[in-house]
Amino acid sequence: MRIVVLAGGIGGARFLRGLKQAAPDADITVIGNTGDDIHLFGLKVCPDLDTVMYTLGGGINEEQGWGRTDETFHLKEELAAYGIGPEWFGLGDRDFATHIVRTQMLSAGYPLSAVTEALCDRWKPGVRLIPMTDDRVETHVAVTLPDSDSAAGAGERKAIHFQEYWVRLRASVPAEAVVPVGAEHAKPAPGVLEAIAGADVILFPPSNPVVSVGTILAVPGIREAIADAGVPVVGLSPIVGDAPVRGMADKVLAAVGVESTAPAVAEHYGSGLLDGWLVDTVDASCVERVEAAGIRCRAVPLMMNDVEATAQMAREALTLAGEVRAV
Amino acid sequence: MRIVVLAGGIGGARFLRGLKQAAPDADITVIGNTGDDIHLFGLKVCPDLDTVMYTLGGGINEEQGWGRTDETFHLKEELAAYGIGPEWFGLGDRDFATHIVRTQMLSAGYPLSAVTEALCDRWKPGVRLIPMTDDRVETHVAVTLPDSDSAAGAGERKAIHFQEYWVRLRASVPAEAVVPVGAEHAKPAPGVLEAIAGADVILFPPSNPVVSVGTILAVPGIREAIADAGVPVVGLSPIVGDAPVRGMADKVLAAVGVESTAPAVAEHYGSGLLDGWLVDTVDASCVERVEAAGIRCRAVPLMMNDVEATAQMAREALTLAGEVRAV
Repeated sequence: MRIVVLAGGIGGARFLRGLKQAAPDADITVIGNTGDDIHLFGLKVCPDLDTVMYTLGGGINEEQGWGRTDETFHLKEELAAYGIGPEWFGLGDRDFATHIVRTQMLSAGYPLSAVTEALCDRWKPGVRLIPMTDDRVETHVAVTLPDSDSAAGAGERKAIHFQEYWVRLRASVPAEAVVPVGAEHAKPAPGVLEAIAGADVILFPPSNPVVSVGTILAVPGIREAIADAGVPVVGLSPIVGDAPVRGMADKVLAAVGVESTAPAVAEHYGSGLLDGWLVDTVDASCVERVEAAGIRCRAVPLMMNDVEATAQMAREALTLAGEVRAV
Repeated sequence: MRIVVLAGGIGGARFLRGLKQAAPDADITVIGNTGDDIHLFGLKVCPDLDTVMYTLGGGINEEQGWGRTDETFHLKEELAAYGIGPEWFGLGDRDFATHIVRTQMLSAGYPLSAVTEALCDRWKPGVRLIPMTDDRVETHVAVTLPDSDSAAGAGERKAIHFQEYWVRLRASVPAEAVVPVGAEHAKPAPGVLEAIAGADVILFPPSNPVVSVGTILAVPGIREAIADAGVPVVGLSPIVGDAPVRGMADKVLAAVGVESTAPAVAEHYGSGLLDGWLVDTVDASCVERVEAAGIRCRAVPLMMNDVEATAQMAREALTLAGEVRAV
């Protein structure tokens, strides 16, 4: 079975670990979000790709969900001593190596997809990880910064990098707009459309529907390829009981006019794209609404508390895909 | 008193610490060798400038004489895990920060001299540190690699980077030639010629006469400026009792046809450049030979065992400069 998964960072990575356990013989291709990518200290950092790679490759800091295990932060301390920031982005000494190798390969002319493949040669994530595009796409968030924010003028409206919104501001001000800058001119990376066209099932893990899955879908050709693939497309709600399971998806959902509920996210994807949708058991009452939108829906436990619970979610998603296919 | 010092790495840095103690009110300008510079992992590394900066700024690993104190090597471990070398060059996590800041500033268009000044803003070495040039100069060493060296063909004659000769091979094969590649087209960095012209005394610390002081003198204009400055030029022998005090200066002296003795090094610099020369007390018998070459010479203890012993060496050098000036 060939499975294609559109993944963001922590949520996507953890789901993938469950999926690998649920379908050990499957041929899994992960299309990774690169809208979170950021240049720091002259280095190219790809947080979502790395989170997938480290999580599946056994190098992740399990507790925080991102970054490396057994990590130190001496380099970052020294950069701060030189007065070089940002200090709010936590790059550890071991993690820096990934960004140095990546930047060196990119400088030598390799596309990001080839670099990602080379990095995965070490981590052996057990999936094929492809960035959504080799072109530069950078998610920006329009915000009005509060008067107290010394980094900008009083009440200034400006567009900031997604990482600044997410990590520095902790999404503490409303996101007025979310724009994947550069997406409209980006081309899917080599292998992306081929993987989608050859898939038996396509899954949207409980990743952020706006800044993770939404950004991948914003690359021209990807949404169309998924809609045209003619195979079941099944998603898992990142919203459980009207709040994100993890992270601050509600903040960016508001920016695109979508309420933070499991059925609203399904409707946002739409029946033209999505065939099946899993909501948590606490949202069982929403099943009818989702199905009324033309999307088959089941209520199952959606908390990724451990790998086995996550594997069960993946099994439910594949079962729902089978039901959709049988129709 | 304005003192100009031509410095390499460890020997130059330690001498400078003594000089600062001997002449606390002096205005010291250090012209640093950049022929040792190397690009590693896409980063610009300036070992000699950094050794001076860290030593005078209190960040040096005292025991080894280079690199940072309280250092870890996690980043390098990870690079090795990615299969990225060279493994023989010991860059620590804290040290990496310096190279990242430097590379970022160079990429932004700042010349190395401005970058060095910015780095020194943090370290406050108490001297003005200027690279000999903002242009790229890279010391290469011609060697015939032994059959057992798996990195090259059997008995292959090739030119390798000085760091590869010095650090990887530990100068274990004869240096057949030492070439400061690019030196002939290099211009002295801003401030270098002005500092020399305004100096009251110019010192050559016990740095390597070929690959440290020699490389600085290879930048067109610097040797001439020193010869024309009309102020005492005094050097301290890096050779004591027919062997280098530290390092492997004998290996590269052989490449330029100079025997590893204190008087031979003085003659190599020549009376057209050098006015005074300090040899160690064990080499007292050589004083006559040096003076016969037209260079005033004194035999004093030249072992930099501690800062006070080094300060005393600096005092002797300044005293000798005074004698030369009085002539």
